[in-house]
Amino acid sequence: MRADFINPFLKACLNVLTTMAHIQAVPGKPYTKQEKLAEGDVTGMIGLVGNKAKGSMAITFSESSILYIASKMLGEQQVQLDETIADLVGEITNMVTGGAKKELTDNGYKFEMAIPSTIMGRKHVTSHSTKAPIIVVPFSTEEGDFFLEVCMEE
Amino acid sequence: MRADFINPFLKACLNVLTTMAHIQAVPGKPYTKQEKLAEGDVTGMIGLVGNKAKGSMAITFSESSILYIASKMLGEQQVQLDETIADLVGEITNMVTGGAKKELTDNGYKFEMAIPSTIMGRKHVTSHSTKAPIIVVPFSTEEGDFFLEVCMEE
Repeated sequence: MRADFINPFLKACLNVLTTMAHIQAVPGKPYTKQEKLAEGDVTGMIGLVGNKAKGSMAITFSESSILYIASKMLGEQQVQLDETIADLVGEITNMVTGGAKKELTDNGYKFEMAIPSTIMGRKHVTSHSTKAPIIVVPFSTEEGDFFLEVCMEE
Repeated sequence: MRADFINPFLKACLNVLTTMAHIQAVPGKPYTKQEKLAEGDVTGMIGLVGNKAKGSMAITFSESSILYIASKMLGEQQVQLDETIADLVGEITNMVTGGAKKELTDNGYKFEMAIPSTIMGRKHVTSHSTKAPIIVVPFSTEEGDFFLEVCMEE
């Protein structure tokens, strides 16, 4: 995967959290996922199919981070992982991918988005069936961390 | 989603299990997922983007069913959910979608597959962010059940 694929996702993620939740998440240094397994409590996932590449994007949240983000987005304290949270994670996944899509299209990478899915379950792990590198961006918030993962096969 | 979308997935799933694992899984009656949450221990998921529709397919296995299937496919007793199982579920997801794709293409529904992802975690639940119906086919094996879910937005 070209390194310039990841930046539009990173920026879109920051942008969604700033505008929708008034949260300034702090991105860490992107790295290549070596072990295939990242752990989280809620994951939003979406498939991407483009003219030059196909791929998959996942955002994996700890319970504390998504309850914090959801509380700020919905203006109401969220205390448990339920359907409201699943819907919201689907929306976040859609908005982040939509934002990245716009910038990538401007750069000549046109792709279409499949339907976002959400997985909830304590300490689940995700992996992607690809030989392409999986780029991970860790983010921290005041109430815990989350991870953005993108893999694209050219 | 047109009902005739689901049959190619159902047939491909039976075909993969018969040829790769020599297992005759028994499909139950397909139904529309009303509650968004289905429970399982390992899920393979893939995004689909076509000329007439976009969607998402998920196969959610109980631990007992996937260990049984994996043991038969690999010719060696599998006793825990590990990376071998994650890889295998990614492969199964790919093969089922590839088989369905062939038949759907013959029927005029051309689509491209994104990259399969696998989620492992006890009793996780999956949901799809769509207003389109989600069609579920339950399957039973000698060692437990699994579920095929397909949603397509036209």
